[in-house]
Amino acid sequence: MIKANDPGIKSWLDVDPNHDFSIQNLPFGIFKTNSLSPRVGVALGDNIIDLVALSQLGYLKPLNFDESTLSSSSLNEFMLLGKGVTRELRNRLSFLFNRENDELQSRSTHISNCLVPIEQATMMMPVNIGDYTDFYSSIEHATNVGTMFRDPNNALLPNWRHIPVGYHGRASSIILSGQDIHRPKGQQKPNENEPPVYGPCRLLDFELEMAFVTYQGKALGQSISTAEAEDYIFGMCLFNDWSARDIQKWEYVPLGPFLGKNFASSISPWIITLDALQPFKVSGPVQEPKVLPYLEYTGEGNYNIDLQVDLKTENGDVNTICKSNYQYMYWNMRQQLAHHTINGCNINVGDMMASGTISGSTPDSYGSMLELSWKGTKPIKLSDGTERKFIQDGDSVIMKGAASKDGVRVGFGSVETKVLPAI
Amino acid sequence: MIKANDPGIKSWLDVDPNHDFSIQNLPFGIFKTNSLSPRVGVALGDNIIDLVALSQLGYLKPLNFDESTLSSSSLNEFMLLGKGVTRELRNRLSFLFNRENDELQSRSTHISNCLVPIEQATMMMPVNIGDYTDFYSSIEHATNVGTMFRDPNNALLPNWRHIPVGYHGRASSIILSGQDIHRPKGQQKPNENEPPVYGPCRLLDFELEMAFVTYQGKALGQSISTAEAEDYIFGMCLFNDWSARDIQKWEYVPLGPFLGKNFASSISPWIITLDALQPFKVSGPVQEPKVLPYLEYTGEGNYNIDLQVDLKTENGDVNTICKSNYQYMYWNMRQQLAHHTINGCNINVGDMMASGTISGSTPDSYGSMLELSWKGTKPIKLSDGTERKFIQDGDSVIMKGAASKDGVRVGFGSVETKVLPAI
Repeated sequence: MIKANDPGIKSWLDVDPNHDFSIQNLPFGIFKTNSLSPRVGVALGDNIIDLVALSQLGYLKPLNFDESTLSSSSLNEFMLLGKGVTRELRNRLSFLFNRENDELQSRSTHISNCLVPIEQATMMMPVNIGDYTDFYSSIEHATNVGTMFRDPNNALLPNWRHIPVGYHGRASSIILSGQDIHRPKGQQKPNENEPPVYGPCRLLDFELEMAFVTYQGKALGQSISTAEAEDYIFGMCLFNDWSARDIQKWEYVPLGPFLGKNFASSISPWIITLDALQPFKVSGPVQEPKVLPYLEYTGEGNYNIDLQVDLKTENGDVNTICKSNYQYMYWNMRQQLAHHTINGCNINVGDMMASGTISGSTPDSYGSMLELSWKGTKPIKLSDGTERKFIQDGDSVIMKGAASKDGVRVGFGSVETKVLPAI
Repeated sequence: MIKANDPGIKSWLDVDPNHDFSIQNLPFGIFKTNSLSPRVGVALGDNIIDLVALSQLGYLKPLNFDESTLSSSSLNEFMLLGKGVTRELRNRLSFLFNRENDELQSRSTHISNCLVPIEQATMMMPVNIGDYTDFYSSIEHATNVGTMFRDPNNALLPNWRHIPVGYHGRASSIILSGQDIHRPKGQQKPNENEPPVYGPCRLLDFELEMAFVTYQGKALGQSISTAEAEDYIFGMCLFNDWSARDIQKWEYVPLGPFLGKNFASSISPWIITLDALQPFKVSGPVQEPKVLPYLEYTGEGNYNIDLQVDLKTENGDVNTICKSNYQYMYWNMRQQLAHHTINGCNINVGDMMASGTISGSTPDSYGSMLELSWKGTKPIKLSDGTERKFIQDGDSVIMKGAASKDGVRVGFGSVETKVLPAI
């Protein structure tokens, strides 16, 4: 039972009802402060629950798990303990911070020892990412791209409705929200009839995505079924799959995106557990034609998570340029993971799998500049009077996400990345 | 100076002149025995030099490096010390095992403490692989594939002579020589006019490749030039990039190979340093048209390494089905690494980058069954009377490689993998 999801629970800590990090959320991250070494924390309102301190005070003893996994600069060791421990720990925290329980609430010294104001903490990469996979699971996005670059009458490639298409990406260049990136350089072929040239990317883009993080999987050769998939998923974060459209266009046939993508991807620092998202499950789109049996699933496969992209210019002007929702995904996480392992490919703790650009059906819900400006033919007007076809130096891209239901909000915080000029 | 490469050096250990692991080679690996925990070893003839034992006996003190990095189940910590330490250690070992030096030669107890017969050791994965990239750098292979699947008159895609085309692969499923694999299952579309089907791969193939392992690179946003590249390459091994041609064909447009590749790749256990290969440098093919300046390089870029693929049937019958050479590569490692980082993509210690299939210009030098049997149209006759279009259950694929010059042989050992039936 996921007790921590009970919408009736109120915290004795003062948490704004519109805060992303409600007591029903309890997301996991890695933080440090001037005086505290890197460690596992759980966000609650404007505070971080320092799990190492809570452990040292004895509050986690009843759970009987290896508490040393909390003194780590990544969540990997803790995740190795599996889904049961994650769930029990969330339930325990929910109990300790529930205003109806006195165990911690009544001890002010303990409280001040185990709570760190979020603004005093430095967030770190939550996960030591092993392998990173990017899917391509929004039918609206795939249709838009196919319409622009191939044939509007046959926008989707023949395999698209049969396979959750995906490809391997670069784990080393996945960075945390707040780290600036430089505009990448590389080969492009702006003129069809002239040789390629080298220079800074001219068509820099974001992609609005979400990613999930895995628990340790099975041995090489084994598969994870759609029915088992949720047991292997720890949680989700926001994911900006930075893309250099000109570099990508010239390089990607026949082996897929490479330098057009691997210069950077940005993630939000808090991992929201699949348990916390459980109340926000919804049905996904009807899949037609029928999928092969190994991709079939029962119940609801999608999650209703509102997503938003803001573009902040150098002068601080902020425009919301996209509003989308994770529930638009044609292929769900269970199908993605089942497909990924159907050939026996093994997954490890800390692997990251991103959704692909999450576009909706209306032009204001498209999850990339490529689609929003329709290849640069429809520039976006910003409130400061300037226009954007793609991302300019000095721009910051900010992605946010949150699920809301029954007065409970489970949010993702944000991922924000500023683009600096090419080196 | 790379003293260890002097062809005049002879070891006081009895090493057959045709042995892969000559005193000029001194390749690095990770091994364990019934009594020894995993650790760094260096192969010399039929023995492994136990570097932890050698360190404990004080023989590595003059080098003044962190010897605790040798007591590890991967080479990563040792590689973090950089190329200078690797070079000094090889020079030191060359000195200690040189028959003209008495320091170790005269101490039989020390010798028996630090040498482990290779047949008593279990080899382990040498490297904790971070990110894995596969290139596509043989012009003969790319031309063969283009001829078979696209247009014989325009076999090479427009970008091929401008870009060392590469894509990201799966690190988790890279396995060591000796580990069996199961035939993968997945979606295929054998009949153009019928829906896809699910089942065991019918067109299982190997790809003869070599891979290099990197030292720690630069920070995200920085590039490694062709002139700097060799300082970031630790060494090389043999690499079998297992491929499921039917799965690959149905999935790979537009984002590249995924499940057709990520069920397994096999490597040989010993990493041969770039220093040991230095005497075997040769010029590569003329690159026409001229490459962009960031891909230009000076001196010799290729290595003369003879390669061979043997197919061993279930009954033990062994046939050599391919003889190729690494020097056929159109794009060299320096260009691959410079290209990989030109957009600021960061590399980490232990990253692995494979060459792509190494095919020569003659049909007996093609590095895959796809090319050797020309899509199954020219079955290969084996000495036991059977034929092969692709790899059958029970078959083992064995790859070997060695460079020879001036009476010195620097070999790679082998990578051998047996294919078991689908689970």
